[in-house]
Amino acid sequence: MQTTNPFDDDKLQEECALFGIRKTEDAAAHTALGLHALQHRGQEATGIASYNGVDFRLHKQAGHVADVFADQQVIARLNGFAAIGHNRYATSGDPMMRNTQPIFADFSFGGFAVAHNGNITNAYALRQDLVRSGSIFQSTMDTETIIHLMATSRGSMIDRMVTALRLIKGAYSLVALSEDALIGVRDPMGFRPLILGRLGTAHILTSETVALDILGAEMIRTVEPGELIVISDQGIESYFPFTSTPKRFCIFEYIYFSRPDSLIDGISVYDVRKKIGAQLAKESAVNADIVVPIPDSGVPGAIGFAAEINLPFEYGIIRNHYVGRTFIEPTDEIRHLGVKLKHNANRNTIENKRVILVDDSIVRGTTSRKIVEMVRAAGAREVHLRITSPPTTHSCFYGVNTPERDKLIAANHTLSEMQSLIGTDSLAFISLDGLYKAMGQAGRDPKQPHYCDACFTGDYPVELTDHINGKSPPQLSLLQGENL
Amino acid sequence: MQTTNPFDDDKLQEECALFGIRKTEDAAAHTALGLHALQHRGQEATGIASYNGVDFRLHKQAGHVADVFADQQVIARLNGFAAIGHNRYATSGDPMMRNTQPIFADFSFGGFAVAHNGNITNAYALRQDLVRSGSIFQSTMDTETIIHLMATSRGSMIDRMVTALRLIKGAYSLVALSEDALIGVRDPMGFRPLILGRLGTAHILTSETVALDILGAEMIRTVEPGELIVISDQGIESYFPFTSTPKRFCIFEYIYFSRPDSLIDGISVYDVRKKIGAQLAKESAVNADIVVPIPDSGVPGAIGFAAEINLPFEYGIIRNHYVGRTFIEPTDEIRHLGVKLKHNANRNTIENKRVILVDDSIVRGTTSRKIVEMVRAAGAREVHLRITSPPTTHSCFYGVNTPERDKLIAANHTLSEMQSLIGTDSLAFISLDGLYKAMGQAGRDPKQPHYCDACFTGDYPVELTDHINGKSPPQLSLLQGENL
Amino acid sequence: MQTTNPFDDDKLQEECALFGIRKTEDAAAHTALGLHALQHRGQEATGIASYNGVDFRLHKQAGHVADVFADQQVIARLNGFAAIGHNRYATSGDPMMRNTQPIFADFSFGGFAVAHNGNITNAYALRQDLVRSGSIFQSTMDTETIIHLMATSRGSMIDRMVTALRLIKGAYSLVALSEDALIGVRDPMGFRPLILGRLGTAHILTSETVALDILGAEMIRTVEPGELIVISDQGIESYFPFTSTPKRFCIFEYIYFSRPDSLIDGISVYDVRKKIGAQLAKESAVNADIVVPIPDSGVPGAIGFAAEINLPFEYGIIRNHYVGRTFIEPTDEIRHLGVKLKHNANRNTIENKRVILVDDSIVRGTTSRKIVEMVRAAGAREVHLRITSPPTTHSCFYGVNTPERDKLIAANHTLSEMQSLIGTDSLAFISLDGLYKAMGQAGRDPKQPHYCDACFTGDYPVELTDHINGKSPPQLSLLQGENL
Amino acid sequence: MQTTNPFDDDKLQEECALFGIRKTEDAAAHTALGLHALQHRGQEATGIASYNGVDFRLHKQAGHVADVFADQQVIARLNGFAAIGHNRYATSGDPMMRNTQPIFADFSFGGFAVAHNGNITNAYALRQDLVRSGSIFQSTMDTETIIHLMATSRGSMIDRMVTALRLIKGAYSLVALSEDALIGVRDPMGFRPLILGRLGTAHILTSETVALDILGAEMIRTVEPGELIVISDQGIESYFPFTSTPKRFCIFEYIYFSRPDSLIDGISVYDVRKKIGAQLAKESAVNADIVVPIPDSGVPGAIGFAAEINLPFEYGIIRNHYVGRTFIEPTDEIRHLGVKLKHNANRNTIENKRVILVDDSIVRGTTSRKIVEMVRAAGAREVHLRITSPPTTHSCFYGVNTPERDKLIAANHTLSEMQSLIGTDSLAFISLDGLYKAMGQAGRDPKQPHYCDACFTGDYPVELTDHINGKSPPQLSLLQGENL
Repeated sequence: MQTTNPFDDDKLQEECALFGIRKTEDAAAHTALGLHALQHRGQEATGIASYNGVDFRLHKQAGHVADVFADQQVIARLNGFAAIGHNRYATSGDPMMRNTQPIFADFSFGGFAVAHNGNITNAYALRQDLVRSGSIFQSTMDTETIIHLMATSRGSMIDRMVTALRLIKGAYSLVALSEDALIGVRDPMGFRPLILGRLGTAHILTSETVALDILGAEMIRTVEPGELIVISDQGIESYFPFTSTPKRFCIFEYIYFSRPDSLIDGISVYDVRKKIGAQLAKESAVNADIVVPIPDSGVPGAIGFAAEINLPFEYGIIRNHYVGRTFIEPTDEIRHLGVKLKHNANRNTIENKRVILVDDSIVRGTTSRKIVEMVRAAGAREVHLRITSPPTTHSCFYGVNTPERDKLIAANHTLSEMQSLIGTDSLAFISLDGLYKAMGQAGRDPKQPHYCDACFTGDYPVELTDHINGKSPPQLSLLQGENL
Repeated sequence: MQTTNPFDDDKLQEECALFGIRKTEDAAAHTALGLHALQHRGQEATGIASYNGVDFRLHKQAGHVADVFADQQVIARLNGFAAIGHNRYATSGDPMMRNTQPIFADFSFGGFAVAHNGNITNAYALRQDLVRSGSIFQSTMDTETIIHLMATSRGSMIDRMVTALRLIKGAYSLVALSEDALIGVRDPMGFRPLILGRLGTAHILTSETVALDILGAEMIRTVEPGELIVISDQGIESYFPFTSTPKRFCIFEYIYFSRPDSLIDGISVYDVRKKIGAQLAKESAVNADIVVPIPDSGVPGAIGFAAEINLPFEYGIIRNHYVGRTFIEPTDEIRHLGVKLKHNANRNTIENKRVILVDDSIVRGTTSRKIVEMVRAAGAREVHLRITSPPTTHSCFYGVNTPERDKLIAANHTLSEMQSLIGTDSLAFISLDGLYKAMGQAGRDPKQPHYCDACFTGDYPVELTDHINGKSPPQLSLLQGENL
Repeated sequence: MQTTNPFDDDKLQEECALFGIRKTEDAAAHTALGLHALQHRGQEATGIASYNGVDFRLHKQAGHVADVFADQQVIARLNGFAAIGHNRYATSGDPMMRNTQPIFADFSFGGFAVAHNGNITNAYALRQDLVRSGSIFQSTMDTETIIHLMATSRGSMIDRMVTALRLIKGAYSLVALSEDALIGVRDPMGFRPLILGRLGTAHILTSETVALDILGAEMIRTVEPGELIVISDQGIESYFPFTSTPKRFCIFEYIYFSRPDSLIDGISVYDVRKKIGAQLAKESAVNADIVVPIPDSGVPGAIGFAAEINLPFEYGIIRNHYVGRTFIEPTDEIRHLGVKLKHNANRNTIENKRVILVDDSIVRGTTSRKIVEMVRAAGAREVHLRITSPPTTHSCFYGVNTPERDKLIAANHTLSEMQSLIGTDSLAFISLDGLYKAMGQAGRDPKQPHYCDACFTGDYPVELTDHINGKSPPQLSLLQGENL
Repeated sequence: MQTTNPFDDDKLQEECALFGIRKTEDAAAHTALGLHALQHRGQEATGIASYNGVDFRLHKQAGHVADVFADQQVIARLNGFAAIGHNRYATSGDPMMRNTQPIFADFSFGGFAVAHNGNITNAYALRQDLVRSGSIFQSTMDTETIIHLMATSRGSMIDRMVTALRLIKGAYSLVALSEDALIGVRDPMGFRPLILGRLGTAHILTSETVALDILGAEMIRTVEPGELIVISDQGIESYFPFTSTPKRFCIFEYIYFSRPDSLIDGISVYDVRKKIGAQLAKESAVNADIVVPIPDSGVPGAIGFAAEINLPFEYGIIRNHYVGRTFIEPTDEIRHLGVKLKHNANRNTIENKRVILVDDSIVRGTTSRKIVEMVRAAGAREVHLRITSPPTTHSCFYGVNTPERDKLIAANHTLSEMQSLIGTDSLAFISLDGLYKAMGQAGRDPKQPHYCDACFTGDYPVELTDHINGKSPPQLSLLQGENL
C-alpha cells in the first residue's frame, strides 16, 4: 500500500508540493529529499531555487525528483544555505516549461523566489489590471500575479507581500525565499497544508510531515490559516495580516491526497482512513467472503472495513507500479487492455468469492467499471463496491485538478444509475455525517463545517471571481509553443 | 502490495523475463504488454525482435518497457506477425548496450533471434573453444555461445539448436524466433519458468502467467523441463532431446521473484506466500501487538503470519514507489538518510507497540538493520523479525544475481550474531522443512529435493564448470567502453 | 573565400542578424532561409517568432540556423503570414537561454515580438528606474528594457515604441512584429544596417542584401538612420521621430562583418575590400614573390593587393571549415597545436618564397603570431604582414563584441613592438585616410567622419552612460544557472 | 578555398579516412586531430580504437570529429599508447551505427581492431562462404569479411592477415591495431592512399599528409602498393605478400578528393590542380572577361586557368560554409531555392561580364545547371563552363560513392546535349591525355595507364565479382532498424 495513484485520470489530483529550508549546508540537497517524499503531490515537474549569500540559483525540469536531482552537477550548482522547492502536477494541455515553479524575480529590494500550492480565484481579473498598467507576464501561472503585485507595491519585502496577498482571493500556501529570509504563508481559511519543522539549526516549511521524516527532522507546529511566518537570522516572526475567518481545511487531504504516514494537525492519516473504512462498514455492510482494496489508495479503508465486520482482508487485485504516464496502445485490437496495465486480478483469491471492493472515491467512474469487470472475469460470485468518500458532485477551484462537472459521474447520475453503470451488485458511499464522525466530529455542522467539502456539497467558501457561471477565464496568453 | 523490490541491493534479483508470440497482428505491441507485466523480472533494459515475413526488426534500449515502447514509431517499425522480447536486470559494472537481448544472427538457414533467462555454467569454456576455431564474439553474454554453437553445427535449425543445447550446462529457459517458427526450451532440470498460452489464433511463450493476464490470454500448460517446443504454421511440435533427470525448479520464484498474482504449476504464488507466513508463525510465534510487513515483498507472508496468530496486520512501514536507481546523496551529512528514500515508519501505528516485522529474505542484512533502526526510532517497544525463507548462505549460479558468499550475512554469521547485527529483539527464519511443507510437500527429501534450493543448502544440482573454487571466470572481453 | 571567421577569438564579432517578413505563406520558413544567409552575423543561437492571425509562436534554440530549423515540426508549429528572426553571437559567460531573441511580451494592445542588433548604452540606468517602479525583468538583455519602457507608456503601439526609443541611447536596428504590422527602426546615427526588400506581395526587413538573394527577393532601399518603418495591410508608413543628426554607419561592416557578396548603400563589399587591398599596396608595397590571404576574410584584400603590385595571388594557407567551437586539446603536449586546427600551410606554394600575408585586422595578435610562425616553418624566406584596417585601439560599445582595451595589441604597443611580437619581417596597416579614400571619400573629415570608426580613433559619437571610465555596469541579474 | 564539397550530392565522395599512431602518450587525442584534418574524406561518423597495454577501448559515433571528440570524457576513456581511427562518409540508406569503424574482434591471439578505406569487390561471395561454415556477421560492411577470414585462418596474426588479404579482391588501404603492433596495408594496385610518418618516437599511418601537418609530424614515405607494414617495439617490418602488379592509384584523389595542401607521392595537389586548369585553358580557351571558380573545389583550377589566359580571377560566387546535411525546404513555393543555400552570386562582379566558370567535375549535372542559372540571373552576358576532369561516364566500385550509371549525365548524353541541359554558352572538359600531361606524363598509356581512371574510361583493373552486369549484390542482412 502506498500514497496516491499517479497518472490515474479517474482520481482527483493534488497539484503541488512545497518545501523550504534555511540555515543548513546543502540546502538544495535537503530540499530534493523533501520533495522526493512529496512526489505523490505532483509528478510532472520539479524545481529548486537556492540562495548562497551572493546569488540565487534556479533549476526547473520536467520529471520526477529522483531523476531530475540525481545529477550531481545540478545539485552542486544549487549551492547555498537556503532553498525552496516545488513539485508540479501535470496540468493537461500546458506543456510550457515556463509554467513551472519556483518563480524568481529581481526586485529593487533584491532577488525573490516563490512557490505556490493552491489556486487564486481572481488571478485573471488582477492580471488584466496589471498588464494594463505596464506589467509584462512571462507565464500563464496565477502565481506570477503575486510577484507583479509585489513589484508594483511599496515598502519592505514583507509590506509588499502583505499588500499583494490582501488583494488575492482563493486557496494558497506559499513558501518564498529572499536574501534575508524564508517565508511561509497560508490563506485565511487554510485550505492547503503547511507545517513548520526543525533540523538542527535549520528551519523547514513543507506540505506534509513525511518530508520531515525523510530528513529525520522534527515537527514544530502547523502554520496557522492566515499566518505569515518569516524565518531569518533574527529568528521566527509570525504575522496575521488578514481578517480572521473560520478555517476550512481541505477534507480530501485526509481521504486521498496526503500520504498515509503523514500527520495532519496531529492526526494520523492512516488511522483516519481506517476509521472511515470502519464507519463505512457500519453504514453499508453486506454479506460477503472477503474485503479487497483497490490499490493503493483503498488499502487503509479496506483494512478498517474488514476489521469492523470481521472478514478477511485480501489482496485480490495487484497493482503494477512500473506504469508511466503513457504507454503503447497502438491498435483497436488491444486498446481495451488499458486498465490491466495498472491492475491485475489475483484470480485464486477472488474466484467463487463474494467480494467487497473498497476504494477512496469515484470521479468519472471509468476505472471503477473496468476493475469491477476484471474482478467478475476472475470468477467473483458477487462484487460490492464501497467508497470511503461521499459522492464527488462538484469541481474544486482551490488547487485540485478535477474534471468539469459534466464529467463527474455523481453529478449526473443517481446512486442506482451509478451502480448499474459500474456494474456492481451493490454500491455505497460513506455519508457526509459519517465522514465527519470518523474524523472525530459529531457530524457536519452546516453553518461552520470545519473542513472545505465543496467537492461533495458545492459549498464554496471563497468567491470564484474568474469563474462566471462555472466557466473558465479566457486563455491568458497569446504565445504558443515556446521551447524556452 | 506488489511484486518485487526493484533497485534494492539487499535482495536477490531475478535476471530476466521472456515473452514470445506468433500469429497475430501487432506481435511487437503484444510483446511490449507482456514484458510490461514482467517488468519486475528485469528493470535495466528491454528489447523486442519481430519478423514480418520479409525481414527481422530489432530494438533494444536501456529503460523500462513502458518508456522504451511508448514511442509509437519504435513499435511501428517492429512490424510483423511474430515477436520475442526480453527484460534484463541491471548487472552492475557492465553498462554495455551490446549485452542486451534478444540477440540476432544471420545464419545460412536465415535470420534467428533468441532471448535467454538463466545462466550457462560452462559458457566460458565453450567460448574459448569457439574463439580458437574462428568464431568472433560481439558481447560478453553467455547467450552468444548458443548462437555460435548453432552456427558451427550442421543440419536444420532445430538440429543445430539441439546440438548446441546438448553441449551447454546450466539453467536456461529460451524463446527464439526463426522465419518459420517460435521456439521455446527449458533446460533438463527446469530451473527457470516457461509457460505456453494462447490468444485467439496466436500462441505465446512467457515466464509468468501475469503476462497472459494482461492480454486476456489463456494458459495452456507449463513447458516441461527438458522440452523443446516448436510453434509453426504446422502447429505445435514437442521434443525431449535431453537425457531425463529429476526436476529442480527454483524455489525462490515462489518466495520472492514471481509476482504474487502468478500461478506456477497451477499453484498461486500469493497463497504459497501466505502459507509460508502461517508456517513461519507456527514455528516462531512471539507475544506482540501487531504484525507489520516490510513492503512490498513481505506483505503476503505477513498476512498469513498475522492471521495464524490472530494479531492485527498493519501498514507500519510505508514504501515510496517513486524511487529510481540513483538519487542524490551528496554529502556525508545526509548520506545516512539512504534507506528512508524507500521506506518511512508510520509512527502512529508503531509507537509503543511490540512489532513483528515480516520480510521474505535477508541477503547482506544492511537494509534490515536500517529498517529495524527506523522502527525503533518511531517508538516501537519491541521489534521481532521473521523471515519467510531459510538463511541465504550460498550464491546462485543459475541466473539469479547474488552477491559473492562473503557478502551474505547468513554465510558468515550465526543466528544470534545476525540478531545482534540487525538489532532485533528476536530473529527467526522459516525452517527448510517448514518451507517445503508450506508448499505441500512432506518436507525436504534430501535425495530428491524437488526444488533447487542451493542458495539455502549449497546443493548445486548442475556442475559449475566455469567456477573453480567459487571463483568467477576471467574477464571475457578485452574491449571496454564502446558506446555502440 | 567566404564571409567571416566564426569562433576566432582574435576577430571582432558582429553580434546579431535580423530578418522580418510579412504577407507570405510560410513566413517562418522564409525567415529561416534569410537567417541562414546571415549565419556569419551570429552563430550561437537563433530564434523565430511568427504570427498567424490568432496567436504568436516562438522558437529559440542554441545552434546554427540550418540545424535548429531543419526540424520540420518546428517550422510547422511556427505557422503564419508574418515572422521575425534573429541570430545571436556567443557572448562568453552567458549561457542562459533566456538571453536569446526574439523576445515576446503580452501587452494590453496585444502580443509583440522584437529582435535587436546593436547595444543600448544606457540600458542599465533605465533598468534600475524600471525595476524601482515595478517592472520585473526576465533576462539580462538590454533589449528587454525596450519592452518594459513600452509597457509602462501610454497610447498606441507606435506611440509607445517612439516614447521608448526616445529614451534609449546607443546603437540599434530593430525588427518587431505586432498583430497588425511588421516594424523596422534604426537609431538616429544608423550604426547598424537595416534594409527593406520585397518578394511578391511580401515585404522584408533584414540586415544584409544576401538575405534577399537567397530568397530571390529584390531590394527596395536602405532603411534610413532615425527612420521607423511600419509595414501593415495599409501599406508602408515611414516616421522620423528623432532629432536629426549626422550619420555614423559602422565602417567595420565594410572591412569584415558583412558578407563580401552584400551591397551596402549600393556599394559592393567585395569591391570595397579589393580597393582597400589596392590602396594598402600603394601605401606599403614590398619586394616579394607571392601574395597570400589569411583565409577567409583576407581574400578580397589580397586579390586587390596582388593585382595592384602585379604579384601572383596564391592560396598559401588552407582553412579547415569543419572546425567547431570547441575541440579536444587535452594535454600540454598537444595544446600548442591550436591554430593548426583551422589553418594549414600549403608548403609547396610557400617554400623559399618571400610572402606577403594579407589579413583584415589584428585584435589580440595571437592568431597572427601563430600563422606567421606556421608560414615560416613551411619554409618562407620572408614574411610581410599587411592589414586592411587601421590599428584597432579601442573597444566597441555599439553592438560589436570586442575585448577590453588592455587585450588589444594595438592599444598597448607601437608598430615596431607589434612587428616584433608577431614575428614578421615587416608589418603595415592601412592609414585612416587611405581607408576612407578606398571607400570613395577624399579622406577622413574629423568634424564629420561619415562612418563610426571609434575602434580605430576612440571618437565615440554616442554617450556611454553605463560605462564610467570604461568600466562595465554591475552584473544585471542575481539569478544564475537557470535551465529554462 | 578549401577541400571538398561536403553534402553535395552532385559530387563523387571519397568514403573514408584512416589514421593510426603507436608509441605516444594520448594516442587517441593525436588520432582525433589527425582525423579532424581528414574530415573532408568522410563526414557522417567517426571512430577511434585505442590500446593501453591492458585492454582495448572503442568509441564510434555519428557526427564530425570536432564534435564527437570534443567530449573530454570520451578522449580520457580512450587511453593508451596506440590508436587507430576512421572517418566514414554517409552512405545513403544505411543509418545503422553498427556499420561504422574501426571494428574490433577478440581473437584467440588477442584483441584486434581494423579500419578500412576502399571497397572489396568479392565481399558478398566470401561472406556467403563464411556464413555457411559458421561465421556470424554483425554488420553489412565488407570490412567484416576480413576479420572473419582471419578468425578462421591459422598461424600468427600476420599469417592470418596475409591469408585473408590474399582471398579478397578490390581496393583497400587498411590500418589495424593489435596488442603488439600497428599494421598498415595497401592492396596490390594501390588504389587508395596510405602514408607513413613520424612524430618523435611515434610512428603514424594515415591517408594524407595534412594529418601529419596538423601534428607537426614529418612524412617518412608512402606505403607501397601491395605492402604490409608492421610497426612494433621491434621497429618497422615490411612485407610484400602479393603477386606484383602494375600500380593504379586513383586519379580522382588529385582532381578532387585530397586536400589541396596534401602531397601525394611528393606532388602538391594544389599545384597539380593549377596545372590541370592551365592545360584546360590551353585546350579550350574562349574570349571572356573574368574567370570564376565554383567554390570551393574549383578554385585552384580556376587560378591556373586564369593565369594561363591572363584574365582576372574573381570570386563571382560565394559559398556559405554553414550548410549542414539537411535544411528546411518545406513547401513547393521555396523548394527551388535549394542551390542558393550553398552558393550566392556576387552580382557586382558578374554583371555584364563574359564569365568562365571552372569546376572540377560534373556528376548528375543538377548543381551545375542551377549555378549557371544563378550566374545568368545575376547579369552575366555569357557563361562558359570548364571542367578540370574528363566526363564521368562510369561508376566507381573501388571505394568512392558514385551514383548508378544511369544517373551520370556524361554516361547518357553527348557534349552538346550536356551543354544544352546545363544551359551554358559553351562547355568543355579536359581531355584524358591533357589530364595525364598536367600530371607530368606524356599522355595516357592505354596498356599501362599508371592511374585508375575507370570513372572516365570504364577500364576496371580489378574484377567486380559481386557485380554481375553492373548490378549490386543482394541485400546482405535481413535485420533492419536496430538502434544498437
